[in-house]
Amino acid sequence: MRTLMIHSDYLRYKTRSKTKIAEDIDDEKRAAGVDNALVAFIAVEEDDEQNPDVIVQKAVNEILNVQNKVNADNIVIYPYAHLSSSLSNPKVATQILKDIETKLIENNQAVLRVPFGWYKSFELSCKGHPLSELSRTITVDPVAETEEETIKVDDGEEEEEP
Amino acid sequence: MRTLMIHSDYLRYKTRSKTKIAEDIDDEKRAAGVDNALVAFIAVEEDDEQNPDVIVQKAVNEILNVQNKVNADNIVIYPYAHLSSSLSNPKVATQILKDIETKLIENNQAVLRVPFGWYKSFELSCKGHPLSELSRTITVDPVAETEEETIKVDDGEEEEEP
Ligand SMILES: [Mg+2]
Repeated sequence: MRTLMIHSDYLRYKTRSKTKIAEDIDDEKRAAGVDNALVAFIAVEEDDEQNPDVIVQKAVNEILNVQNKVNADNIVIYPYAHLSSSLSNPKVATQILKDIETKLIENNQAVLRVPFGWYKSFELSCKGHPLSELSRTITVDPVAETEEETIKVDDGEEEEEP
Repeated sequence: MRTLMIHSDYLRYKTRSKTKIAEDIDDEKRAAGVDNALVAFIAVEEDDEQNPDVIVQKAVNEILNVQNKVNADNIVIYPYAHLSSSLSNPKVATQILKDIETKLIENNQAVLRVPFGWYKSFELSCKGHPLSELSRTITVDPVAETEEETIKVDDGEEEEEP
């Protein structure tokens, strides 16, 4: 799994057209938005199919960790195939994203999960502080967690190249 | 090189703070924006150092190809480390991005190159049509050009998963 997390003043989207792999959605899901959001753009990868439960739990942990640091009021789960060139089966991807949503809600988070497999317009406003853009690769491997291209700064906090 | 191209109603950014690898910029570069833009988020990768000239030319060709299809008035070159976990040396990256800008201007394009190595806030509005989000991996390899995760649609045009 590849994820790009952006702490945004707002995120709004509208579904525009379906692809062949689009999930069925209620009318209320056709357009939505939230303010002060940690937007997690996520590409579920082929290797994630080996152990979806582990991937879900690691993704939830990463998202909660960042959400806690940046104090976002909302979490957005945004399917984003463009982050990887090795995508999982669409059904597996949809289920993993739904399971991440469920677990975040169980953790008392306000979650907006954006529909899978639709072309969408969207607007966002990245806040621009050093933790407002973070990328992660999450794998089933117990030791291979990577915080990518981090820069050690003076106070010992890890920040990433913009 | 990894690039994510987003056809956006607008792109606005403001520099917020410098990293150790920040390029020096004039005051006019501290904040800027354009409308109807093809925004090319770009991560220059370690392998690109083998032949920067080839990478530059291939990137320019890809950008012009997409710009021609979507009819964007402006092109934005936006350094985006989060698209790769194998980044080039920052000096090489900065030079490659500058060279892409130069070649696009030589092709009579209106180009906004966003400063390298700064934390920035930004706003954009992705249009949401099927070609409004495209990702590419560009390599020095003459045969390995990839248009990723494309879906063949009825009219034979290639579109990508959203
Ligand atoms: Mg309903």
